[in-house]
Amino acid sequence: MFKKILIANRGEIALRVIRTCKEMGIKTVAVYSTADADSLHVKFADEAVCIGPPASSESYLKISNIIAAAEITNADAIHPGYGFLSENAKFSKICEEHGIKFIGASEEMINRMGDKSNAKATMKAAGVPCVPGSDGIIESFEDCKKVAKTTGYPVMLKASAGGGGKGMRAVWKAEDLQSAWESARSEAKAAFGNDDMYMEKLIEEPRHIEIQIVGDSTGKACHLSERDCSIQRRHQKLTEEVPSPFMTDKLRKKMGEAAVKAAEYIKYEGAGTIEFLVDKHRNFYFMEMNTRIQVEHPITEQVIDFDLVREQILVAAGVPISGKNYTPKLHSIECRINAEDPFNDFRPSPGKITTLHAPGGHGIRLDTHVYAGYSIPPNYDSMIAKLITTAQTREEAINKMKRALDEFVIEGIKTTIPFHRQLMENPDYLAGNYTTKFMEDFELTKETEE
Amino acid sequence: MFKKILIANRGEIALRVIRTCKEMGIKTVAVYSTADADSLHVKFADEAVCIGPPASSESYLKISNIIAAAEITNADAIHPGYGFLSENAKFSKICEEHGIKFIGASEEMINRMGDKSNAKATMKAAGVPCVPGSDGIIESFEDCKKVAKTTGYPVMLKASAGGGGKGMRAVWKAEDLQSAWESARSEAKAAFGNDDMYMEKLIEEPRHIEIQIVGDSTGKACHLSERDCSIQRRHQKLTEEVPSPFMTDKLRKKMGEAAVKAAEYIKYEGAGTIEFLVDKHRNFYFMEMNTRIQVEHPITEQVIDFDLVREQILVAAGVPISGKNYTPKLHSIECRINAEDPFNDFRPSPGKITTLHAPGGHGIRLDTHVYAGYSIPPNYDSMIAKLITTAQTREEAINKMKRALDEFVIEGIKTTIPFHRQLMENPDYLAGNYTTKFMEDFELTKETEE
Repeated sequence: MFKKILIANRGEIALRVIRTCKEMGIKTVAVYSTADADSLHVKFADEAVCIGPPASSESYLKISNIIAAAEITNADAIHPGYGFLSENAKFSKICEEHGIKFIGASEEMINRMGDKSNAKATMKAAGVPCVPGSDGIIESFEDCKKVAKTTGYPVMLKASAGGGGKGMRAVWKAEDLQSAWESARSEAKAAFGNDDMYMEKLIEEPRHIEIQIVGDSTGKACHLSERDCSIQRRHQKLTEEVPSPFMTDKLRKKMGEAAVKAAEYIKYEGAGTIEFLVDKHRNFYFMEMNTRIQVEHPITEQVIDFDLVREQILVAAGVPISGKNYTPKLHSIECRINAEDPFNDFRPSPGKITTLHAPGGHGIRLDTHVYAGYSIPPNYDSMIAKLITTAQTREEAINKMKRALDEFVIEGIKTTIPFHRQLMENPDYLAGNYTTKFMEDFELTKETEE
Repeated sequence: MFKKILIANRGEIALRVIRTCKEMGIKTVAVYSTADADSLHVKFADEAVCIGPPASSESYLKISNIIAAAEITNADAIHPGYGFLSENAKFSKICEEHGIKFIGASEEMINRMGDKSNAKATMKAAGVPCVPGSDGIIESFEDCKKVAKTTGYPVMLKASAGGGGKGMRAVWKAEDLQSAWESARSEAKAAFGNDDMYMEKLIEEPRHIEIQIVGDSTGKACHLSERDCSIQRRHQKLTEEVPSPFMTDKLRKKMGEAAVKAAEYIKYEGAGTIEFLVDKHRNFYFMEMNTRIQVEHPITEQVIDFDLVREQILVAAGVPISGKNYTPKLHSIECRINAEDPFNDFRPSPGKITTLHAPGGHGIRLDTHVYAGYSIPPNYDSMIAKLITTAQTREEAINKMKRALDEFVIEGIKTTIPFHRQLMENPDYLAGNYTTKFMEDFELTKETEE
């Protein structure tokens, strides 16, 4: 087993990893920028090394400084957390070259799964469903018709240079294809000076449902059930839950099998997540793979009853996994508490926390690196806490979340707590009736007392 | 279901009950003495009524004031928590007379199980093992010999007026009985002016292991596995765990069956605990029954995955229980954090908490009513927090406890955190090798840094 692990990260995930290392009897090294000198990950690690100024590019992303910190402190492994260098193939390679075990994916694996088109080709080869459509650019309207026919309606025409919805057309039946093709091309030409088009199947009422997997060095993999992450704002997840309210036993079995097949096909080692889009007919399509621990991993831990970071460390040390697939017996929800003002377009709200009172009691888990008197630096991600509730049913987990949000006091800065309070009262959310479009229609009510 | 519950208690248990009521959509009424105006149970309840001055006899034990508070606020039920009026037969009766549901045992049940000799006679009749011995006072040495023979050696001779170990003799074989009888009697005569003696079987290496039970109005009961509470100081529990390291599947089955038999025999309604002494041969003997929720109930909740206070409320409202007996699949430990100085004979240390930082993360539960800036009044119990860790194995739960105790910062007062830190390093504790005598030999090492 490793004797000393350097955590190449900050914030709650750095603290999260330190906690597990302590419980396993492994020494820890924190690294920090000058903006994070007062952080708990620095206080709770056995050793701490300053690796640079506040700018991430000069500290948490600065490979040479992190490797130097590991060498000075004689760390035999590095845990990268999420974000920063966690999916950086070069960093993974340099760690290995320095004889330091990278607790994450290999250079080759990151390259293979990090590039979206590479990943899609690999998953297709593994037999995992991917969103059907054209192979790259469509040359002519004749080709367009053929691709639409094989893909099956509805389809989405997309400008290759597109963005902001420009040059995009949803087409529901064959007779509308030609006019859509022409108008989309001319719109794309006008907007981007480029009218190259490609086509994908239109995913109706898409849900973002991901499968947590773990693989080991023997090539064996298993899945630890799903997480529904459809509640997103500008592709940032706000809350997640397991089980997905849209899940059925049959769908979980199919998605779990596909995820395990994918992981075993690429001989994946460690914890990873396969993200799928699921349409209203419960067809699912590979979106991407994350070759790291995810922010929302605690809800999975709550329903599988074991520590995923511990599992990562064990697998990295060569311990084989049990190989058991999981069906959740409990319901768990995470709300991401960000230092943002939900009434002002979720603008970041860094600054000093003057008062902090954490919720507690039955079924409550809180992962946070902040404390009363702590100043949130403006340089990094605005997430300051993950509030997780777990209960026997979805309704109870939601009721627990409501009461925990009511108990949670953070003063001195704005937070997303009021948003989550309103979300937990939203009829569509309560009914489990939501897709990735949910936040487009969600309207926050200005609270009179805040 | 009840619309509004008054919580006739204070501190963490009052907050604990309020939390569950909130999650169930039931309104709450807090009552408080003038010493507790700033308490969280007052802040988090929907309504709060001051019921008197700091002295418990004038507030938390003052039945008329509590009933008045319930009537003023139109509460339809009262939850008594533990301690105070929770096992007061008169209070239970007065609640019923006022048409307020008492979420606890009936007057008759409390009278039946609250008196130790009544309880023992009832349990004997139910066929539950009780400590064998004489029926009251032994009249002569001839009788003494007979009782010793039926009880079986070793036996304990005890002075009826005894206390502090005076007039007590352990007797391991028949030939030592007469000299023990004579010396114990003369010692008792000298000490108490009374040489009446009785006899009980000597429990070798006794462990305090209790079984949590729940019964409903249909007369059905089930057990929710055990808690080992052997680590006690002057009959005050300090830490508890489930499963007991001394437990076997066979013993749990036998103890569980005895507890369910006891509960069904007396038609027990609600949550209750049957406390047993278990000797080194794994014989077990009924000690007493607690007809209320216990301080240490959270460790049971952690391994059964449901809320016991919720279950109490449901049963009181007439909802039948599932009737399923439980075998723990996880390991859970509770450390009671008291405002006491462990280096000064555990003397109470009330006062203002200047800094509070709570531990968090995977497998950590904290039940507390205190916060930074809160002043602990000197009038009540010194327990200020219950720190609970849960993991797949005992070793992991202990390692989690160590790291959580390290994270826990309480400044301004003395606490028992340093005691628990040392306990979690004690070789006998780590080996699960402890009895109710453990604390007699435990020596706290003065810490250099505190």
